[in-house]
Amino acid sequence: MNPLTIFPLHGIPEVSAGDDLPSLLHTAIVDAGLALDDGDVLVVTHKVVSKAEGAVVTLVGEEERAYRDLVLRESVEVIRRRGDLVIARTKHGFICANAGVDRSNAAPGTAVLLPHDPDRSAHGIRMGLKALSGVDVAVIISDTFGRPWRRGLTDVAIGVSGRGAILDLRGTYDAAGRELHVTEVAVVDEIAAAADLVMGKASAVPAALVRGVILPPGDGRAADLVRPADEDLFR
Amino acid sequence: MNPLTIFPLHGIPEVSAGDDLPSLLHTAIVDAGLALDDGDVLVVTHKVVSKAEGAVVTLVGEEERAYRDLVLRESVEVIRRRGDLVIARTKHGFICANAGVDRSNAAPGTAVLLPHDPDRSAHGIRMGLKALSGVDVAVIISDTFGRPWRRGLTDVAIGVSGRGAILDLRGTYDAAGRELHVTEVAVVDEIAAAADLVMGKASAVPAALVRGVILPPGDGRAADLVRPADEDLFR
Repeated sequence: MNPLTIFPLHGIPEVSAGDDLPSLLHTAIVDAGLALDDGDVLVVTHKVVSKAEGAVVTLVGEEERAYRDLVLRESVEVIRRRGDLVIARTKHGFICANAGVDRSNAAPGTAVLLPHDPDRSAHGIRMGLKALSGVDVAVIISDTFGRPWRRGLTDVAIGVSGRGAILDLRGTYDAAGRELHVTEVAVVDEIAAAADLVMGKASAVPAALVRGVILPPGDGRAADLVRPADEDLFR
Repeated sequence: MNPLTIFPLHGIPEVSAGDDLPSLLHTAIVDAGLALDDGDVLVVTHKVVSKAEGAVVTLVGEEERAYRDLVLRESVEVIRRRGDLVIARTKHGFICANAGVDRSNAAPGTAVLLPHDPDRSAHGIRMGLKALSGVDVAVIISDTFGRPWRRGLTDVAIGVSGRGAILDLRGTYDAAGRELHVTEVAVVDEIAAAADLVMGKASAVPAALVRGVILPPGDGRAADLVRPADEDLFR
């Protein structure tokens, strides 16, 4: 197996509603001296996607209160609540803090929502890059989520296009010849986490190109990553 | 920021109790044409660590029952239970399926436990590699955990030596000048997930070398990754 390489994409300017994100990403790729290749995976943080799509809300009136109201408006179900912290399920099925509504890396007095349909966003970026480069890469939209039980945040995939989201190893065998019964690997989450390592939370690196990783065939969806409620012991 | 590169380490033979794991890893690194460098991070799946340390149990009698008994013996607290699935807290503080007791990639009729003290295991590998190569790399011991709410497994860090486990960005500022209040990134978990991308669950690639990632200074501990019970809304 060849090494896996992750290139940070620098120089992407502050993104505003209506900006042509595929074009900005393509320029950053070319400026990095890279050419897209079959099998590449482009990871884009949702924040620039949301901004390009205009999914930014101005917090009118008292800002903290407006933010809290917005979080509840974006919540389909509140799973837990303690003080200011709300763990909520979004319309996409994701369970995360503040329903994914975020004020970091947002203009003062505004908050950035999750993209309306992150799979569709990923598909749009993929098609845009294909038109510009001729190469059909996989695209992952990422966000930063907390986890129960473990400290610290990690990046996960919230939108996918061009490859499968879950690597299903059920029915295959381990090195000792034992069947792997229940091993489904969330490879797109692992790729999102890997890409975050070259991005940094405070720096202006909103995308990374991952080369040398093998993803499952097919066209994944973020919904593939959502555990059905009846299988979930922690709702 | 330079690219991040992850090299799979092939050719490590089946590991047994008492094997000199640092030496096996060093040979695999040299055989891959690599030389350890300052700043490198070596990720080792816990299974070879546990095997080298003899943390393997023979399942005596009816195998399923012996396995279930062993899982309960390794559990400090059972968090949830449904059918055969037990989500338990281990003596290390980790909350995971079957208290980390695993029969995949184990000899028939045996189960592999988590290392007794994975930080100490990581430290031992680090010191062994330093003696062999002269280079002091960071070492992460990884395992494969499920998550609530999200389908699929991802690799996480269960032992750390030589660098910090959590990147604390509190008190720093985002690109828009807004202070990042509560952003702690579980970078060692992200590295473990990234390394898994070159390993594969069924193949015999139990380690990977990660080059070009910046970890926090200090000497992290797996306990840094355990969310204190009073901060946890999902016990």
